[in-house]
Amino acid sequence: MKNVLVLMPVEARHKEKIEAAGTGCNIVYSSPDQVTEEQVRSANVIFGNPKAAMIGASENLEWLQLESAGTDAYIIPGVLDRKTVLTNATGAYTKAVSEHAFALTLMLQKKLYLYRDEQKKACWSDHGTVGSLSDCTVAVVGLGDIGQAYARLVKAMGAYVIGVKRRATNPPECVDELVMTQDLDTVLPRADVIMSILPNTAATRYIYTPESFDKMKDTALFINCGRGNAVSSEVLYQALSEHKIAAAAMDVAEVEPLPADSPLWGLENLVITPHISGGFHLPETFERIVDIAAGNLAAFLAGRELRNVVDFATGYKK
Amino acid sequence: MKNVLVLMPVEARHKEKIEAAGTGCNIVYSSPDQVTEEQVRSANVIFGNPKAAMIGASENLEWLQLESAGTDAYIIPGVLDRKTVLTNATGAYTKAVSEHAFALTLMLQKKLYLYRDEQKKACWSDHGTVGSLSDCTVAVVGLGDIGQAYARLVKAMGAYVIGVKRRATNPPECVDELVMTQDLDTVLPRADVIMSILPNTAATRYIYTPESFDKMKDTALFINCGRGNAVSSEVLYQALSEHKIAAAAMDVAEVEPLPADSPLWGLENLVITPHISGGFHLPETFERIVDIAAGNLAAFLAGRELRNVVDFATGYKK
Repeated sequence: MKNVLVLMPVEARHKEKIEAAGTGCNIVYSSPDQVTEEQVRSANVIFGNPKAAMIGASENLEWLQLESAGTDAYIIPGVLDRKTVLTNATGAYTKAVSEHAFALTLMLQKKLYLYRDEQKKACWSDHGTVGSLSDCTVAVVGLGDIGQAYARLVKAMGAYVIGVKRRATNPPECVDELVMTQDLDTVLPRADVIMSILPNTAATRYIYTPESFDKMKDTALFINCGRGNAVSSEVLYQALSEHKIAAAAMDVAEVEPLPADSPLWGLENLVITPHISGGFHLPETFERIVDIAAGNLAAFLAGRELRNVVDFATGYKK
Repeated sequence: MKNVLVLMPVEARHKEKIEAAGTGCNIVYSSPDQVTEEQVRSANVIFGNPKAAMIGASENLEWLQLESAGTDAYIIPGVLDRKTVLTNATGAYTKAVSEHAFALTLMLQKKLYLYRDEQKKACWSDHGTVGSLSDCTVAVVGLGDIGQAYARLVKAMGAYVIGVKRRATNPPECVDELVMTQDLDTVLPRADVIMSILPNTAATRYIYTPESFDKMKDTALFINCGRGNAVSSEVLYQALSEHKIAAAAMDVAEVEPLPADSPLWGLENLVITPHISGGFHLPETFERIVDIAAGNLAAFLAGRELRNVVDFATGYKK
């Protein structure tokens, strides 16, 4: 009998789904904060994101189904036993994160952050011309599920879309052009909007350098909804305070929460949201995570292949 | 020889277009602030929006081509001689205003105004769940060019769209359902988003009453990009401060500029932009206005029918 430990905030209807898929399992419900080390160590299967330190490469753990798309905390050597299969929730966050990134894009383009600031001063004042995505080249850096969904949204408004990804494939329909990540520098000078949705891997860490921002148009908009360490706070601060680009938005920070004394908070041309594009902020997201977990549980018990198995070498879905 | 007075901020390329269309005319360039009463009174054709009082029902004025979509200042009896033909710039503002209204919709839905306020306090704090247009019923009140373009944008994100218009027609493709303005009250309780893009006419003035807001969902978002007097400042203030609806955005105010002492400025759940959705904020808009004016000038001189002739009874394009 498999011990299945569920650390996700499930409600009755979610439990029904999990229990239907896991007939014959011993299913225990807890949370990352309340679960005991003993429970984690005896589990054969875990749903959710336990504190990595509690797992301690448990040999009992056959499979860990994360509730996140990001896997960085779990692919560090020593966290999981080498036989533990890791699956993530890629796909569940697609709608939430792509729509948030899209909303940020329009907020920047239509200068709505400036008008919000003026409103606080009871000031009815005009901030001049704005752009339209129909006149823009948009670079989507990271072309997974979220990047592709975002590409479809900006394309529906008439943008010319350049997808940037690490592996060569045929361009998906949602992009007009595909460029390899190694050639990112050739894309930056052409883009009016750069939306970065890269995971945290060795190859993406600090991928945006001061030189990257030098290469961008001074009218460019930069949006980061991937991982905060794609660009250091210092580099971003410098680019924005020197007006190398027009404006930026970030849902992620190099250090989270962003420290209260960070100079980034005070930049007029930077919009900050506190890593809320994903999470469970769009109720649908959690429903999809439970569907992935329950589907995988049935497959696991039947000895079938799991969905969203993570490649430890890259941190991506295989 | 016709005297054509151009009061729009034209550049060389626009003058070329106008002069090519107006061969043989005496074309004079000025601005609403600098033009003399003599120039206005002797003009046979005016391009742009002169101060209404300067026109004084001039009998020389055969045709007035406005640079605006709104016509309210010019259909007041006594402003134009009864034989003067009035045309507006309907169509030129479609992209600019529909995109601005769309950006405001997403800003409200994704709570980006709250996060901007938190940013000013250097505060990394979570404001809970958000919605997706894919789960929303959107009422578009006023289904002219702008309303239809907005309908297409929200529909592309998966919304169910109810168009509300004054005249019965077949529903355009961009809406799922069409309701007559007289039945607006039946739509309000069903809508998650109400985007109002009504012109200023006797029928639309103060169309949203306290009872209208009572009928709306308490989670509803209300966006006004039409004319400010569709709802009084007092009624809007009351609805928002009592949380009859979740949030609102307005690009137009009952009195413009919105007085500095208006309590509307201080509402957290209201986003204010200073009537900038249209104007010439999207550079493309002005190109389109010049195209309409030049095309109409050629038609006028050839005795052909003009585009965008305004019906004085309604203030709309005929």
